[in-house]
Amino acid sequence: MQPLVECVPNFSEGRRQDVIQAIANALRAHAAVRVLDIESDADHNRSVITLVAPPDALVPAMFDAIKTAAALIDLDHQRGEHPRIGATDVVPFVPLQGVEMDRCVALARELGWRVGNELSIPVYLYEAAATRPDRVNLADVRRGQYEGLKAEILTNPERVPDFGPACLGPAGATVIGARPPLIAYNVYLTTADVEIARRIARAVRNSDGGLRYVKALGLLVDGRAQVSMNLTDYRKTPVFRVVELIRREAQRYGVGIESSELIGIIPQAALLDAAQWYLQLDNFKPEMVLENRLGE
Amino acid sequence: MQPLVECVPNFSEGRRQDVIQAIANALRAHAAVRVLDIESDADHNRSVITLVAPPDALVPAMFDAIKTAAALIDLDHQRGEHPRIGATDVVPFVPLQGVEMDRCVALARELGWRVGNELSIPVYLYEAAATRPDRVNLADVRRGQYEGLKAEILTNPERVPDFGPACLGPAGATVIGARPPLIAYNVYLTTADVEIARRIARAVRNSDGGLRYVKALGLLVDGRAQVSMNLTDYRKTPVFRVVELIRREAQRYGVGIESSELIGIIPQAALLDAAQWYLQLDNFKPEMVLENRLGE
Repeated sequence: MQPLVECVPNFSEGRRQDVIQAIANALRAHAAVRVLDIESDADHNRSVITLVAPPDALVPAMFDAIKTAAALIDLDHQRGEHPRIGATDVVPFVPLQGVEMDRCVALARELGWRVGNELSIPVYLYEAAATRPDRVNLADVRRGQYEGLKAEILTNPERVPDFGPACLGPAGATVIGARPPLIAYNVYLTTADVEIARRIARAVRNSDGGLRYVKALGLLVDGRAQVSMNLTDYRKTPVFRVVELIRREAQRYGVGIESSELIGIIPQAALLDAAQWYLQLDNFKPEMVLENRLGE
Repeated sequence: MQPLVECVPNFSEGRRQDVIQAIANALRAHAAVRVLDIESDADHNRSVITLVAPPDALVPAMFDAIKTAAALIDLDHQRGEHPRIGATDVVPFVPLQGVEMDRCVALARELGWRVGNELSIPVYLYEAAATRPDRVNLADVRRGQYEGLKAEILTNPERVPDFGPACLGPAGATVIGARPPLIAYNVYLTTADVEIARRIARAVRNSDGGLRYVKALGLLVDGRAQVSMNLTDYRKTPVFRVVELIRREAQRYGVGIESSELIGIIPQAALLDAAQWYLQLDNFKPEMVLENRLGE
């Protein structure tokens, strides 16, 4: 099995197609890199690119993409609904197969060092690559956005970057790190009462005492109550446990689960884990799946 | 997605490793063919090879394997516990991805024509490739085995082969056809009472009025009652429906499902179908699985 790392960089450009394509082409110029998906949002003025590559190929490819973004995106003039701190705003490395989290942390540091030193862009390490507890969460690192950091980085020692200079050019700063795959997962209830979805969201999410790797909100979508979630570590808080806890909480209000949906891409293992748990396949191994043999 | 067909030929040799390897090497000589698994049983005196290839590559590869087996296995001297009618006993083509059953039927006919005409081995088409209703089931085609057919083929017009001569040499006859992937699946109950497993087997299997594509037996395995099954078309009778029906039947006897197990290889789709059903992922598509994007 070939070792593979996923990278999901966020760039602060969601309107100019030529800029987005220039960044994507900088990635595609590396033969070992596969660009799986590009999602641009004009209101957010932001693009999210999903790429997969063997670990060694990712740092040079991402370096070229960050260099391209820095040349084409000027944060002094960029405006959009989504918070951002840099032209290349955030770069998470995600272990996919045959690679541990440690390796992704090392990739984040290697890329950060090059971006800081060769491009003179301040780099903050976050999530599993963070060097300090107050830099684990992206929201903390991005506090004040580009404009706030521009002033503060010169005077506040708390905001000295992990790599690169303690001053901000028009490319801003970049947050680089490593995290498990993120699953965006929504459950629709058999009710239009959004208050029930909100109560269930509070019951299952980590911030209010629920499951450790669940972020959740109750929403009304197309006239149906929806529990909208990010599952931030499906190996430790698996999808099936989340949905069964929601099912139990919903019963208490006399409603059920109408359906659920995945947004974007999901690792195969998250679904195979669900099949294994429900079918009680105690001795299941991924090698039993025919398609997994073909890639050997 | 590359079109792929699986082929699971059964050869009447499970003891002489040099013969088994010669057959496997005849397959491996074709670059597009992947030999995934070889299982030999000395008591049965039989080997089952699992191979996967694009459809065009399979007929020449299987032709060479059948030619090799015919040269090295002499049915006049072969003995084993497993019923058999030829050196290459049975050759099912199985649609895996990007291929319909019709294509596998066409492959079976093409291979059958070549084996019959170029190797002078009688060929019977079975399952989805059968030309007559009484040749759909393998057991009907193999009736009397090699020894019985040797006499009968000369005189009984019912046994005239689909391809090749109506007389039998020491390589016997070969049964070639097309069928959906077969899943060998066992469910262990929380009881040692094998009678409960037998009753549940009768409840769920097609032959006694149960689910259409289920064959089932109740067994006692390692001191536990087991419902042992072959699921012969998981797209029409899915694994999750079988296990949930068994769960309900078991409840009636006051027992539950302790665990379940897969024997051999399972198509990814059979497990993804289970995840989708239990999680109620109404709009799930295989392209949402990250690994399925990598193969594009």
